[in-house]
Amino acid sequence: MADDRRFSGVLAPVVTPFAADLAPDAGRLVRLCRWLVRQGSALAVFGTTSEGNSLSVDEKIELLDALVEGGVSPDDLMPGTGQCAIPDTVRLTAHAVRLRCRGVLMLPPFYYKAVGEDGLFRSFAEVIERVGDSRLRVYLYHIPPVAQVGLSPELIDRLVAAYPDTVAGIKDSSGDWANTAAMLARGWPDFRVFVGSETFLLANLRGGGAGAISATVNVNPAAVADLFAHWREPDAEARQSALTDFRHAMEQFPMIPALKQVIAHLAADAGWATVRPPLEPLTAQRNGALVRMIDERGLAMPGLLETAG
Amino acid sequence: MADDRRFSGVLAPVVTPFAADLAPDAGRLVRLCRWLVRQGSALAVFGTTSEGNSLSVDEKIELLDALVEGGVSPDDLMPGTGQCAIPDTVRLTAHAVRLRCRGVLMLPPFYYKAVGEDGLFRSFAEVIERVGDSRLRVYLYHIPPVAQVGLSPELIDRLVAAYPDTVAGIKDSSGDWANTAAMLARGWPDFRVFVGSETFLLANLRGGGAGAISATVNVNPAAVADLFAHWREPDAEARQSALTDFRHAMEQFPMIPALKQVIAHLAADAGWATVRPPLEPLTAQRNGALVRMIDERGLAMPGLLETAG
Repeated sequence: MADDRRFSGVLAPVVTPFAADLAPDAGRLVRLCRWLVRQGSALAVFGTTSEGNSLSVDEKIELLDALVEGGVSPDDLMPGTGQCAIPDTVRLTAHAVRLRCRGVLMLPPFYYKAVGEDGLFRSFAEVIERVGDSRLRVYLYHIPPVAQVGLSPELIDRLVAAYPDTVAGIKDSSGDWANTAAMLARGWPDFRVFVGSETFLLANLRGGGAGAISATVNVNPAAVADLFAHWREPDAEARQSALTDFRHAMEQFPMIPALKQVIAHLAADAGWATVRPPLEPLTAQRNGALVRMIDERGLAMPGLLETAG
Repeated sequence: MADDRRFSGVLAPVVTPFAADLAPDAGRLVRLCRWLVRQGSALAVFGTTSEGNSLSVDEKIELLDALVEGGVSPDDLMPGTGQCAIPDTVRLTAHAVRLRCRGVLMLPPFYYKAVGEDGLFRSFAEVIERVGDSRLRVYLYHIPPVAQVGLSPELIDRLVAAYPDTVAGIKDSSGDWANTAAMLARGWPDFRVFVGSETFLLANLRGGGAGAISATVNVNPAAVADLFAHWREPDAEARQSALTDFRHAMEQFPMIPALKQVIAHLAADAGWATVRPPLEPLTAQRNGALVRMIDERGLAMPGLLETAG
């Protein structure tokens, strides 16, 4: 029987706005999150695109509190909670569960490389046992291009067998459709497979997958949500082509600063563009090219400025 | 003029003992640190070998306090303080400076890959400016096989030029002597180059380097310290050969669990052997082979058990 607490659909790994002094800007984040939800997207805050690993655990806890206080429903929240150190992952995950977040997206510990399946299994198991809450739903986060530490199907077999009510799905950011297809073929019961790029969304849904959690959803949420809503209809291929085309256009730029710059441009407010080191802002030249691309396509984020919060 | 606050010599990236429930065991850590100092080694706690990235910032602050309260001199301490998030690195570094630690070993932010020189420069600069204390001495930590994010000579040029009194040296754990030689040739004033393996110690000292910060120093400190003390003497090559031979024997095993198992064996106390996930303990078979190697060599850690703390 399907667990109605589990996510399906489209989620944005929401970019994190920063003030000039690099402090997180909770007001802007609340505004962006509320806008994304109105556009049909749920919220994978503190993902890779969110510069989530450039935020301290304390900052993430404060931002999560601000989101819920700011009117974002915890039913729409899948915060990233996987840190290198188990006590940090436990603390942040337990806080998310206390706030009734519908799920968490969990990186494996990513400092030590070439670790074994047993060590990764124990890492996740320790976190799940220590949080010790039946409401917890964990989405595993497989992103070997960045984390370097990946999650094998055999590891997922063991996690799903040990924690069938808790280990609810995965975000596959391998960028390799064959890997996603292999996971779908595994047939874990009610296991939600999300692709890490909307270029694979239609293929994923046709294969039994649950949706997409993708950087570009930050600025293009309605179109991605529309494909999710209408993927069985005749125009699905055309919708997919348009999404893929926009994604590829964005991939000509460093994704995280480019997304922030698109929002700054469309909101006519440079304050959205700040990134935290080690990331770097776009050069003026690259920013010019990005803005031309956005304007030529007529992309807009209608209503973002009007959001209270 | 040489800055007498800067380190030279031999440092152990001290292994972190854990209780059965995986909590850090401050008592055992104090004991090991005091023993290492008596053997002629200083203390790079919270390094890679220390499972430093499997400890939360809170745990590291508590352990640092316990070390100083337990009689370890801050003059012997070079804690690892580089985290993925700038506020975490600032908090831990500022605490180390308040405790008068003689230096800190600082990883770059290591989650985001393929970041640029500007972004890395700004990461270190933000930390140094925010700590804002003239007593701070930073040793950069270059360990591309694990962190993946490395530190180029051009980046170090910029850091040394901007913060000549603060950026005091580097630990080169590239495992590539040509890289160390290139850094020595750069001739940064009074810049302390440490090799990450004692197999390069004699070459480093002959090239003007400052010493070694090496995993194996945990169990073999006196012999490494002896080479540092006597490297200009006729038997230096023979001392180096013996160190290299032991290091290579240890490298037949996964280094971190093996070091802990050696201590457990020599202290006849299995409590030393616990590792935190994602690391895994040695299998019984590998442990048997390790113990035979140690016993055949007659390695000992005399006085470890007698240390108060």
